Amino acid sequence: MLSKPQVKYIQSLFHKKFREVHGHYIVEGPKMAKEAIGLSPDHIEHIYACPDWFSSFDGDLGLLHEKGIRITEVEMEKISSLQTPSDVLVVLRKPKPRLPVEWKGLNLVLDGIQDPGNLGTIIRTADWFGVQHIICGSGTADCYNPKAVQASMGSIFRVNLLYEDLDIFFEHDISVPILASSLAGRPLSAEDHWKDALLVIGNESQGVREKIISRATHKILIPGAGHAESLNAAVATGILLYELTN
Amino acid sequence: MLSKPQVKYIQSLFHKKFREVHGHYIVEGPKMAKEAIGLSPDHIEHIYACPDWFSSFDGDLGLLHEKGIRITEVEMEKISSLQTPSDVLVVLRKPKPRLPVEWKGLNLVLDGIQDPGNLGTIIRTADWFGVQHIICGSGTADCYNPKAVQASMGSIFRVNLLYEDLDIFFEHDISVPILASSLAGRPLSAEDHWKDALLVIGNESQGVREKIISRATHKILIPGAGHAESLNAAVATGILLYELTN
Repeated sequence: MLSKPQVKYIQSLFHKKFREVHGHYIVEGPKMAKEAIGLSPDHIEHIYACPDWFSSFDGDLGLLHEKGIRITEVEMEKISSLQTPSDVLVVLRKPKPRLPVEWKGLNLVLDGIQDPGNLGTIIRTADWFGVQHIICGSGTADCYNPKAVQASMGSIFRVNLLYEDLDIFFEHDISVPILASSLAGRPLSAEDHWKDALLVIGNESQGVREKIISRATHKILIPGAGHAESLNAAVATGILLYELTN
Repeated sequence: MLSKPQVKYIQSLFHKKFREVHGHYIVEGPKMAKEAIGLSPDHIEHIYACPDWFSSFDGDLGLLHEKGIRITEVEMEKISSLQTPSDVLVVLRKPKPRLPVEWKGLNLVLDGIQDPGNLGTIIRTADWFGVQHIICGSGTADCYNPKAVQASMGSIFRVNLLYEDLDIFFEHDISVPILASSLAGRPLSAEDHWKDALLVIGNESQGVREKIISRATHKILIPGAGHAESLNAAVATGILLYELTN
């Protein structure tokens, strides 16, 4: 049984402001819940689930006893951010972002990805290609937005996300090449392999800002023989990461 | 001024059933509207727009006189499918799909892309790479769904979309290689260039069905060194089209 303040508190986590105040976020659905529970018990605040989910649970029963809260389907409808609620919702503690001491491998910089769904898909794509860090510039959606979390399909648990003012970030000495995706760049080719680099992806409609492009050591473009004006930001990220890592 | 039946009719076009009955669909926003108007006047049923849009219009005034309907912002809110309505909505006639006589170039087959947003992004990506035809199997969202149309960013006007029962479609003699994206395939490599081929993309959660995979002449996989279980269908399409066409 959920109290009114509990419902209000979980609903407040749909909003960035309250996720920041509480340091919590939500994940939904049995697959994401299983991954979240597998992470570490310390990350878990509470597990809200319907009776069916409890009966089929085959993990740490001690954890379930300590943090599990049995609710009805009607209650789930109240606290779910999904159009079709699932049978489990987990409230998690946001991890502390780690600032890497050096930029090893290929890492991403997002210059204002506004759509949470796009951001989640980019996180998932980055994880597929083994990217460890994503630096999110101002104007980028919050990665703990429920839509971003769901679109990441669990990759939010594996990729380190940092929010930085890119104008300040690029003032630092960055010892690896900076590749910016730009319609004015040179076409990407099969020779493009970069072991250590930062790959900058721009905003959905504006692309990478001029100020940031001027910081890039290389400007690259995805060749295409058709007529579309541009590619979706997550699709472009996937193609670039594929070519740069293979 | 819009009459009640007009409002009802436009709203009915949010639903596949009525798009089929009327043979019409809607596009919204100044960019898409401009492209739609540039296509051919015959495609246009009506242009519903706010006064500001009319005053800034610099195209065929005869067409505007014949098919333009001046409405208020409040009326636009009633007929728009967008959360933030724009100042123009065009009702278009659906084009007749063309069945190609031969499969030249790289073309797509979608084995059940359920999400209209994903479908629209796939259409946009296909257009970027010059794909001319997309064969949509049962279970694939309707390409004239407003969300698919908007996500296609105008590419819906340039790519030919056919809806077919794939089980029957693949009974025909297809004289080009059939490439299926599959987690059990061999890794895609820089040697993968295909001039003429059908590329099959599977459903978001189930992938390509076994029955269809058995028809494929080649099964391919996008290599990735990370931990994500899979890629988003539109991202996978982008990477495959990039590698196969470059």
